[in-house]
Amino acid sequence: MKIIVFGAGLVGAPIAYDLASAGEFEVSVADKDVKALNKFAHSKEIQVIQSDLSNPEIVKKLAKGFDFVISAVPGHMGFQTLKATIEAGKNVIDIAFFPENLFDLDELAKENGVTAISDIGVAPGFSNVLIGHVDHFLDKTLKAVIYVGGLPKIRKWPWEYKAVFSPIDVIEEYTRPARYIENGKMITKPALSDPEFLDFPGIGTLEAFNSDGLRSLTHTIDCPNMIEKTLRYPGHIDKIKLLREVGFFNSNPVDVNGIEIKPIDFTAKLLFPKWKLEEGEEDITVMQVLIEGEKGKKKLRYTYDLYDSYDPITKVHSMARTTGYTASMALRMVAKGLYKRKGVSAPEFIGKQPECVKFLLAGLKDRGVVYKERIEQFLTD
Amino acid sequence: MKIIVFGAGLVGAPIAYDLASAGEFEVSVADKDVKALNKFAHSKEIQVIQSDLSNPEIVKKLAKGFDFVISAVPGHMGFQTLKATIEAGKNVIDIAFFPENLFDLDELAKENGVTAISDIGVAPGFSNVLIGHVDHFLDKTLKAVIYVGGLPKIRKWPWEYKAVFSPIDVIEEYTRPARYIENGKMITKPALSDPEFLDFPGIGTLEAFNSDGLRSLTHTIDCPNMIEKTLRYPGHIDKIKLLREVGFFNSNPVDVNGIEIKPIDFTAKLLFPKWKLEEGEEDITVMQVLIEGEKGKKKLRYTYDLYDSYDPITKVHSMARTTGYTASMALRMVAKGLYKRKGVSAPEFIGKQPECVKFLLAGLKDRGVVYKERIEQFLTD
Repeated sequence: MKIIVFGAGLVGAPIAYDLASAGEFEVSVADKDVKALNKFAHSKEIQVIQSDLSNPEIVKKLAKGFDFVISAVPGHMGFQTLKATIEAGKNVIDIAFFPENLFDLDELAKENGVTAISDIGVAPGFSNVLIGHVDHFLDKTLKAVIYVGGLPKIRKWPWEYKAVFSPIDVIEEYTRPARYIENGKMITKPALSDPEFLDFPGIGTLEAFNSDGLRSLTHTIDCPNMIEKTLRYPGHIDKIKLLREVGFFNSNPVDVNGIEIKPIDFTAKLLFPKWKLEEGEEDITVMQVLIEGEKGKKKLRYTYDLYDSYDPITKVHSMARTTGYTASMALRMVAKGLYKRKGVSAPEFIGKQPECVKFLLAGLKDRGVVYKERIEQFLTD
Repeated sequence: MKIIVFGAGLVGAPIAYDLASAGEFEVSVADKDVKALNKFAHSKEIQVIQSDLSNPEIVKKLAKGFDFVISAVPGHMGFQTLKATIEAGKNVIDIAFFPENLFDLDELAKENGVTAISDIGVAPGFSNVLIGHVDHFLDKTLKAVIYVGGLPKIRKWPWEYKAVFSPIDVIEEYTRPARYIENGKMITKPALSDPEFLDFPGIGTLEAFNSDGLRSLTHTIDCPNMIEKTLRYPGHIDKIKLLREVGFFNSNPVDVNGIEIKPIDFTAKLLFPKWKLEEGEEDITVMQVLIEGEKGKKKLRYTYDLYDSYDPITKVHSMARTTGYTASMALRMVAKGLYKRKGVSAPEFIGKQPECVKFLLAGLKDRGVVYKERIEQFLTD
């Protein structure tokens, strides 16, 4: 089976290596950036294609030459790339995390007989799979909470943070109001709101804040209480609030000595180099997903814990591991015929098929990405 | 006696009012800014002169028409304004706090038979007077410490700070390395270094950090340990360090989307409006000056405490009160013939004449600016 990976970035590259490693697939990687493609200079298994993926016509033409597509392009190109791939009639695993609604392409994918899975990283991604899985098993889901963060292993003043994905998307998370579901109602609060301290074994205390990360879950899961909170080392949030309060993240231009400038453009210039995760710098991914609900007369709480870190052997960052291997395993799952739904699927749809969840968990475990499950039982009051 | 005040700013205006209030002097105020001069529209006693004081020739011509000058111009114009005034042969009280060395004009002032006193605000200013005073009395001065801060009475997140003088000079204090004398040697440390918490009665805990404020004292006072530290509400320093670390105070231009911009210019645009002390907003001035030394067989510690606040009757901010009334009392001291030294004096020179110190303290007390003196005695080891 011939696979093409769109995007040779932080996550695209380890996906390509993973798919090519055991000779299962013939793997090609396409990117506009020659430097990004140079990573594969020493690989005999992976073919590289220099190509401008911002042009959907090029995407469509490229896709037609392959059996399966993985889209790991930047978010702003994600929707059009997915659309072009679906139009080419190819199954696709998509981790572009575009801002548009993924279900807008569901009809088109069905018409083209395409199986597309979007948002299938770590969170969004495997968090959705787990919620979908438990929701499918329970009679009634009452609560779902996702705590997730990508952090540097070594904490350095003042930020104790490195951006494990695009830093401008991190700022977006720090400024866009956060939506969550409480008692069946959608609540909107400012970003960075409701900070709370939580202890994680082997890591210590982290601070969680509301972030706008539920995405498709608000439409697909019938649960009256759902929330995602992002994790940082304690103190980071206060520092970010400070910058936000001064206006350093604003998009409205200000006049500085007769020059119009967007504060966020200026801040990005100074701040983002400080947040750059260096090659070989160890990062960790921490996630806890809690789901509570009723099954028969039992009240159950499922807790899934993920602690993953940078792999010094493969030199793959943890965020790339946890995101990329979820995507590469999802591709295998579809390729093997385990998941057949036509249309655009959110990852929680996969959760309805226990054999798919089992397959993904096993594949992730083989790659060192281990989810620990804990089930607690309560008596219904 | 005809007085002219150069500069109708935050401090110049209350000086003019103070000098004119009892009919002691005929007072005029000169400024380029018509808006600044409009403050005096309702005053019958004070004459206003719209004049460009950035031109030293204009300054000299203006000064010649008066008996005495107070220079309260911005720091960058301070040296040339003082020089022009001395060239005009007029006695002058100067609170411009210019970066140049005030003693560079000493010879010129002596040649012109002029009595000039520079840096005669609160700190630098009355702090120097007190150190000079105790140093003159003691046989040997061993230690002098100045803690000083101008703060808003009402503390608001995140800064708990309002700039009581030019905010760009505040940033200068946050970035310029701090020099102090320890065991007879000049030590240079980064700005904001050596933070310590101190409790002040009626105020609570404040945080002090090294600032480069000794100025003339390093040359004029023979004391092996001298330091000035600036006071802020706790937490302010950490926030400032954060901005400094990111580079928001840098002067070297950075390229933002093809536009060269100095970070400090950009930061000033966003930050300074947040630090603006509003009309009627209450500020406080806190100062503690400690001087230790030997007199005969006694070891003595002198402590002077100042706590001053905004005057809701006159609507004069505390920083303007403590600075301006020191200057206006110094003018009276010279006008009465109490202080006669020709040349440019640093305020610590005044401290050598106990009758001058007594005069200033009494005048300040009349205006509600009260220094509390405490003398403790130790046995020499």
